[in-house]
Amino acid sequence: MKNIRQQKIDSFQELRQNKARLLIHCPDQPGIVSAVSEYLYQHDANIIESSQYTTDPKGGEFFMRIEFEAGDLDSKKEELEEKFIPIAKQFAMDWRFSYVYQVKKMAIFVSKELHCLRELLWEWQSGDLTADIPLVISNHEQAREIVESLGIPFYYIPANKDIRKQVEAKQLQLLKDYQIDFIVLARYMQILTPDFVAAQKHRIINIHHSFLPAFVGAKPYERAYERGVKLIGATSHFVTDDLDEGPIIEQDISRVDHRDNSEDMKKIGQSIERSVLARAVKWQLDDRIIVHKNKTIVF
Amino acid sequence: MKNIRQQKIDSFQELRQNKARLLIHCPDQPGIVSAVSEYLYQHDANIIESSQYTTDPKGGEFFMRIEFEAGDLDSKKEELEEKFIPIAKQFAMDWRFSYVYQVKKMAIFVSKELHCLRELLWEWQSGDLTADIPLVISNHEQAREIVESLGIPFYYIPANKDIRKQVEAKQLQLLKDYQIDFIVLARYMQILTPDFVAAQKHRIINIHHSFLPAFVGAKPYERAYERGVKLIGATSHFVTDDLDEGPIIEQDISRVDHRDNSEDMKKIGQSIERSVLARAVKWQLDDRIIVHKNKTIVF
Amino acid sequence: MKNIRQQKIDSFQELRQNKARLLIHCPDQPGIVSAVSEYLYQHDANIIESSQYTTDPKGGEFFMRIEFEAGDLDSKKEELEEKFIPIAKQFAMDWRFSYVYQVKKMAIFVSKELHCLRELLWEWQSGDLTADIPLVISNHEQAREIVESLGIPFYYIPANKDIRKQVEAKQLQLLKDYQIDFIVLARYMQILTPDFVAAQKHRIINIHHSFLPAFVGAKPYERAYERGVKLIGATSHFVTDDLDEGPIIEQDISRVDHRDNSEDMKKIGQSIERSVLARAVKWQLDDRIIVHKNKTIVF
Amino acid sequence: MKNIRQQKIDSFQELRQNKARLLIHCPDQPGIVSAVSEYLYQHDANIIESSQYTTDPKGGEFFMRIEFEAGDLDSKKEELEEKFIPIAKQFAMDWRFSYVYQVKKMAIFVSKELHCLRELLWEWQSGDLTADIPLVISNHEQAREIVESLGIPFYYIPANKDIRKQVEAKQLQLLKDYQIDFIVLARYMQILTPDFVAAQKHRIINIHHSFLPAFVGAKPYERAYERGVKLIGATSHFVTDDLDEGPIIEQDISRVDHRDNSEDMKKIGQSIERSVLARAVKWQLDDRIIVHKNKTIVF
Repeated sequence: MKNIRQQKIDSFQELRQNKARLLIHCPDQPGIVSAVSEYLYQHDANIIESSQYTTDPKGGEFFMRIEFEAGDLDSKKEELEEKFIPIAKQFAMDWRFSYVYQVKKMAIFVSKELHCLRELLWEWQSGDLTADIPLVISNHEQAREIVESLGIPFYYIPANKDIRKQVEAKQLQLLKDYQIDFIVLARYMQILTPDFVAAQKHRIINIHHSFLPAFVGAKPYERAYERGVKLIGATSHFVTDDLDEGPIIEQDISRVDHRDNSEDMKKIGQSIERSVLARAVKWQLDDRIIVHKNKTIVF
Repeated sequence: MKNIRQQKIDSFQELRQNKARLLIHCPDQPGIVSAVSEYLYQHDANIIESSQYTTDPKGGEFFMRIEFEAGDLDSKKEELEEKFIPIAKQFAMDWRFSYVYQVKKMAIFVSKELHCLRELLWEWQSGDLTADIPLVISNHEQAREIVESLGIPFYYIPANKDIRKQVEAKQLQLLKDYQIDFIVLARYMQILTPDFVAAQKHRIINIHHSFLPAFVGAKPYERAYERGVKLIGATSHFVTDDLDEGPIIEQDISRVDHRDNSEDMKKIGQSIERSVLARAVKWQLDDRIIVHKNKTIVF
Repeated sequence: MKNIRQQKIDSFQELRQNKARLLIHCPDQPGIVSAVSEYLYQHDANIIESSQYTTDPKGGEFFMRIEFEAGDLDSKKEELEEKFIPIAKQFAMDWRFSYVYQVKKMAIFVSKELHCLRELLWEWQSGDLTADIPLVISNHEQAREIVESLGIPFYYIPANKDIRKQVEAKQLQLLKDYQIDFIVLARYMQILTPDFVAAQKHRIINIHHSFLPAFVGAKPYERAYERGVKLIGATSHFVTDDLDEGPIIEQDISRVDHRDNSEDMKKIGQSIERSVLARAVKWQLDDRIIVHKNKTIVF
Repeated sequence: MKNIRQQKIDSFQELRQNKARLLIHCPDQPGIVSAVSEYLYQHDANIIESSQYTTDPKGGEFFMRIEFEAGDLDSKKEELEEKFIPIAKQFAMDWRFSYVYQVKKMAIFVSKELHCLRELLWEWQSGDLTADIPLVISNHEQAREIVESLGIPFYYIPANKDIRKQVEAKQLQLLKDYQIDFIVLARYMQILTPDFVAAQKHRIINIHHSFLPAFVGAKPYERAYERGVKLIGATSHFVTDDLDEGPIIEQDISRVDHRDNSEDMKKIGQSIERSVLARAVKWQLDDRIIVHKNKTIVF
């Protein structure tokens, strides 16, 4: 299995080598696109894909994502970043470069339900999720077998609300040790403290098993069944202090009818959860998501 | 235009003449289907379509809808109903017969936004909505032209929360005069009193412009935009005393993204509202909906 | 009704006044975006929306659509176009400017089935389709009433395969007289000659009542029913000489099951046809579609 | 992992013990439902779910699926079947009983692409696919690791068109040895001979990676890309002699756009293939599919 993954990764290696992305957010004003594209042109960078969005043509916020290719990227990236600083200053930009050859490190947190974990591992295993997964953390033992069978370290850290601080201290240490870029809560059923969340701002992706903002909180399928809805959904979002209130990345739904009880809904819903979370994680890996206030721009 | 409608109606006339539907709700127990189908067989009624549902195989509730055909239905329907009474008693049934040739009378209430009204009038005009629409009631004048151009009486009854009782008194009188079977609120933006709702139990169908239970109440598109959802929806439901809390008949959604402002969402949403409401109304006309507690069974 | 339309149109008038779109197609090479955005910046044009696409990062084709705003657009548009010529030459561009205040003139051709025509007229009437509809042409009389009731001239031109040339001569004269920009075949059931099509290259939008390339040709719903498909669809495409083989603009589908006969499928399908055609027409009006070989890029 | 599966299976054991399904197909005539439901009532069988369909109310074909529960089913099933024979004769029925405790044996055939195989194994492993999978057969070695890791025998049988007969002889022997009920072609890229297909009539389920009847045959994603479609799909169907022409069980689609090349379409399509095939297999296991001519009725 690992061979398929390795082959796919190797075959993309050359392709990735000279690719980068530039993400920009600033007040809208004339001349931004002109300045940025002129800058890239001067550095022999060829634009592969470019997307932009302005909240309001009259004095709104400007967002941009450019994917470009430039020869010898590794050796000239410092110069590239340095030369961008004046432009960034001129337009008061939030900005960052992301280099495709620097594969992102993603930690997965999971509890007892394994369907979302499996979808991610599967995509990873087949080489379609271009991330490193240095570790999986769980407050239960159910996931150990599948995780370790793929050669990924599995950390069992029992958790409950009374020991939250100690648990998170251990988790934070692991995230640091493994130099994790972002966390995926693949049905991790523990509430995180504000400190933990603050330390990982916009770097924790959760999957909630309802079409938010409907059925915030616990047992959404049971409540969907009680309410008699005709569609059920799932929502992937960044985690903020307010439970299930963070910026939404992706949502999807599936049709149900009166014959489906809450168990059926749960089963149907798992399929939506899997694909919604997988899409959100891929967009994160491709640097397609910009958070603005409590919303996401997905380029 | 009316000619198309009339032609279609005439062509179905013979087909409809001998068709009826029997709707049943009772505690589940062995022998119900056997008793009902034996009864229909004895009365030379041929089952065209039959659907049933049990909430729980062990001691649940039983629901059934049978569409059947029987020669000379009009002349023998009294006997048919009378002979069914012992069976209904034996199984403690809620039941009703509905004769397809008795075309249902539907009143439409509307305010300023006409897209749902138009969808219904269009389907009616093309002969695909087999209802009579004896009148349209509105608290605004916008709909008059289109309604009267189709030869349907239009009643303008200005409304606000201070004169709610008087307004509803006029409306109730009209419903009585025109012998209305059920009401469709096609974006009627006035709250109905509990008395009015109680008098029309499960006979008022509303369209709410969100995917309930998300965004209950006013301005759902604005709130959907503020929340940054990736899908917007519409919900058709029976009206109960609790605003937007009645039994859901049908829902659907459409994808939106960060570029869509609340105006765009409103426009995209109108298309969903139209089709969701049209489906709910058709199911109502076909006697496909049974309300059980706060849910619907749609056969 | 016309008042709603007029109000909406008036309210957008100012907004539209200074808006334009620039569409570009050329061989990909570094510097295009830089040159175009610099040019717009120099002419005080503010980019509102910009999309680009390259078929292949290595030596492919480059496509771009920019929507921009510039003060006094009407008075300076000639200069704007003239100054663009050197850039266009440098990069070997196909290009065109489109001014939003120049409302496009669209002719609708229809036969007996009116659902697509109605959808378009409805959107037009409510001010959401920013086109002029100077005339409707039909080979039947069914549409006359609805068309004339909206004050639009209706031309009845009977047609069959033996008189195709004469019919098209009349049609071409009308298109010329009314200075038509493009044609919508809203279920017009006559085959067009190669001459007619050639004279309107990429300016005829058709709706085909199947999910192309399945069920090319006549009676697609009947054939879908015979084949036992579980989904039916509709396709909007530009008309080329090869029947139903032109560049696809938009497609959508709806679920059916074994209970749906070909009549039911037709009815369900009409709803898809309406929305698919309406979307394609809106994208055409917004200059979002670029045809490349036998495909469309929809920005 | 196997523990989760075993637990789930055990927990349903009791539930399954006394459940059966009766499938019927006969010419429509009055009295069928009455006779069948009376018969079940007399044998103390409680109807859990019942569905019926008539192709045409006037002289069509009648289809029925009844799921029922009866105490001591195992000991009385012979009597049950025997007593049904007179009814079956009276109405000229095709019929069969299916006992839920007799878990169906399903063979999976696969080539190099493993996504459909994995989806099925995953569902099986988590106890949601109530089948036995006694073996997997492949003409390649790629699937061996995953199959054997779950304790399922894996048979590698190299195949090509010159040795088709010998290959199928081996396969048939294995199907016989393992007493296989039906076969799932989970992306098995070899054509089967008419003899093989005839021996397994309506017992081979295939997944085709297009929205049939579009793109029958090889390389559908490449051809979908060439044609410029805006939706891609997948189709699960029973295999017949005519390639990709067998009765369709389930279909679904996903949206694509001009940016998706054939590789992207393939990746997007795999997700549809997985879910479409999984649904078809579940319906097969639940005896929900009746084949009639070249179509399926899915109850």
